[in-house]
Amino acid sequence: MTDSNSNIEILQRLYAVIEARKDSDGDSSYTASLLQAGMPKIAQKLGEEAVETVIAATTGDDQELVGESADLLYHLLVVWAAKGITPDDVWAELSRREGTSGIAEKASRKS
Amino acid sequence: MTDSNSNIEILQRLYAVIEARKDSDGDSSYTASLLQAGMPKIAQKLGEEAVETVIAATTGDDQELVGESADLLYHLLVVWAAKGITPDDVWAELSRREGTSGIAEKASRKS
Amino acid sequence: MTDSNSNIEILQRLYAVIEARKDSDGDSSYTASLLQAGMPKIAQKLGEEAVETVIAATTGDDQELVGESADLLYHLLVVWAAKGITPDDVWAELSRREGTSGIAEKASRKS
Amino acid sequence: MTDSNSNIEILQRLYAVIEARKDSDGDSSYTASLLQAGMPKIAQKLGEEAVETVIAATTGDDQELVGESADLLYHLLVVWAAKGITPDDVWAELSRREGTSGIAEKASRKS
Repeated sequence: MTDSNSNIEILQRLYAVIEARKDSDGDSSYTASLLQAGMPKIAQKLGEEAVETVIAATTGDDQELVGESADLLYHLLVVWAAKGITPDDVWAELSRREGTSGIAEKASRKS
Repeated sequence: MTDSNSNIEILQRLYAVIEARKDSDGDSSYTASLLQAGMPKIAQKLGEEAVETVIAATTGDDQELVGESADLLYHLLVVWAAKGITPDDVWAELSRREGTSGIAEKASRKS
Repeated sequence: MTDSNSNIEILQRLYAVIEARKDSDGDSSYTASLLQAGMPKIAQKLGEEAVETVIAATTGDDQELVGESADLLYHLLVVWAAKGITPDDVWAELSRREGTSGIAEKASRKS
Repeated sequence: MTDSNSNIEILQRLYAVIEARKDSDGDSSYTASLLQAGMPKIAQKLGEEAVETVIAATTGDDQELVGESADLLYHLLVVWAAKGITPDDVWAELSRREGTSGIAEKASRKS
């Protein structure tokens, strides 16, 4: 369960679990209650986890950054599920940038 | 290049590209110059991209959220590279939570 | 112009200047162009300045924190002006908390 | 207690209260326990309140924005107290920008 392949696919699996929670009882699951709270609350949690990741990156150790990054990614997946976009939509966007002009150039042009 | 498998692995590929930029000339690459600017600046960029993702989630359309999510993930990878942690470290943490008590329970206990 | 009294009132004065920019030409003023960009963009700037203040607080010196705090307050005033609330609305809310149960208790109950 | 003058000075009064909590028992006061938690935690709270203010600005009503702005300002004062800078330091910086080239120009040059 922890070989490299299944690790790579962990984001897909988590997204599927989150999707399945959309119709479940909010009382029984943190994810279900978050999904039912609506996008402002879901986006707020994403923002708060990002703040914790920023703090861990600047003042924490490696394990804190790993833990906060995991929290951040999880809440990003909940935002995607709530909005109806899939991980593949985002992987495709990243691949598109990689394939054409390179993400670095894209990011540079944006600034 | 855009089949499902290569999409799943896009984060690994991007991380490898970022790693390779660590020793390159900052003038020639956005990523290299960001890595050379040091962690406070790198973490600041992560935070700013998170803000843009929060705004896109609450007020934008699907395509804006896809684009901002891609930017957020890219800058998260730069933070990891700067700190010396790998995507596998984070996938392992997410898998550990999945395998033991479930991320939902973990997140719930944390709050 | 820099005695204690006028310093205390600086936020009121800045708010009045921002209000006056609401009808001016966006090309000639940063504030006017920000107001015309609409709330998602204005709120995004507030969030970005908050990130910079967090970074300055954890990794910067006193002068950096002073400068980023000034930027943060300025953009908070722009958010208020765009939404149509006044500094007095917020001072009254802070005074109300102070007068009744104390802000510390309020903050504590909230968490 | 709620006339315009005392409202203007509410930030000064709150700062004095926060300063006085620096030496008090963390168990008895939210502010004291936050101050004792150290800057990474204090800055994290500031960032989280900023996220809530951004969400209120884009999706909330006036009263929500007033309430979140009050929370944000309060936690900004705690950051200042923890770092040892005073409100006057920040008012002086804002006045300096106003007196010389104008904050709008300053903000514009910065971007």
